[in-house]
Amino acid sequence: MHVTIIGTGNMARGVGSRVLAGGHELTVVGKDEERARAVADELNGDVRTAVSGDPLDADVVVLAVYYPDARDAVQQNAGALAGMAVVDITNPVNESFDALVVPADASATQELAKLAPDANFVKAFNTTFATTLKGGEVAGQPLDVLIAGDDDEAKERVATLARDGGLNPIDAGGIARARELEALGLLHMQLQEPLGTGFQSTVKILA
Amino acid sequence: MHVTIIGTGNMARGVGSRVLAGGHELTVVGKDEERARAVADELNGDVRTAVSGDPLDADVVVLAVYYPDARDAVQQNAGALAGMAVVDITNPVNESFDALVVPADASATQELAKLAPDANFVKAFNTTFATTLKGGEVAGQPLDVLIAGDDDEAKERVATLARDGGLNPIDAGGIARARELEALGLLHMQLQEPLGTGFQSTVKILA
Repeated sequence: MHVTIIGTGNMARGVGSRVLAGGHELTVVGKDEERARAVADELNGDVRTAVSGDPLDADVVVLAVYYPDARDAVQQNAGALAGMAVVDITNPVNESFDALVVPADASATQELAKLAPDANFVKAFNTTFATTLKGGEVAGQPLDVLIAGDDDEAKERVATLARDGGLNPIDAGGIARARELEALGLLHMQLQEPLGTGFQSTVKILA
Repeated sequence: MHVTIIGTGNMARGVGSRVLAGGHELTVVGKDEERARAVADELNGDVRTAVSGDPLDADVVVLAVYYPDARDAVQQNAGALAGMAVVDITNPVNESFDALVVPADASATQELAKLAPDANFVKAFNTTFATTLKGGEVAGQPLDVLIAGDDDEAKERVATLARDGGLNPIDAGGIARARELEALGLLHMQLQEPLGTGFQSTVKILA
């Protein structure tokens, strides 16, 4: 598959490393060429770069930016995203990182879907920290990637990317379940200080 | 400590087994003596029994009943619960188990606290299934017990019970965080079918 990641921060690097580990093609889209190139160079694989505004072409588009920027990206690309599998990885936290800014009965994914109703939104990677994605495992266990969305084919593409990258995809249900995934994302972030785990922990369903 | 569990179902047995494993005193309160006695006999320890309406006396009271029954129990005992550490373990799910019945910006724990404002409510054990509590571990890992509440002493009592029972208590923050714990409880329940784990899985923060 060809994956396009919009964003040049830690999560772009984390998800990008798994895409490459799975043998898939990767394009990184930055606000400018320098930032996109920095991610491509760090990922150390055959990575293409693009800048915001370039035509989007991908089997899966990953919005690896903060929630407000994800809203801008979706609005700017609403036409191009129609019919595409679009992955929302955001935890839409407030400035003090202790609550979510989306309506209590909604989720970032559902709010983003309103901006591009013809795109096939998938929630994923919001409970996996960037550092842990680079290694793909914590304490000898592959990361669980909880995936929610209404379009089965889009979800299956994201599950395939996770699986090919050595991770453990879990189907968490329809797009409405993004609400619980974002609650878990917030909880996981909030637990870093009491646990002292410095964003190197992972949420795992053990059985 | 002396722990009083209100309820005679699987979760009463699960939490009760950890209380006894930690060497604490246990009273089980049932709707009638027979049901309470059945739990006491199954737990196979020095367990006292009581019936609804008997005076409550405990260092920690655990509401091990479904949410509507927890509301009734709190209303009936609002006076006695004042100043007590009261553990709400509920996942306030709807009849189809796919959403929560509490307001989207609230939690069962916060709703129960409204009924007995002088009690010190603690959310705990809502992400640990009964079967796993009986063993105390899954896949060789002690269960994480996520604990939320505004009263530090009440939370510390619950953490002590968990620790003494061989579990791993985690301070998840104030009572407002019960909302995310209940979202996680719902998510964990919903994952049972896709994962095929039959309520024998556990949510673990690995680092």
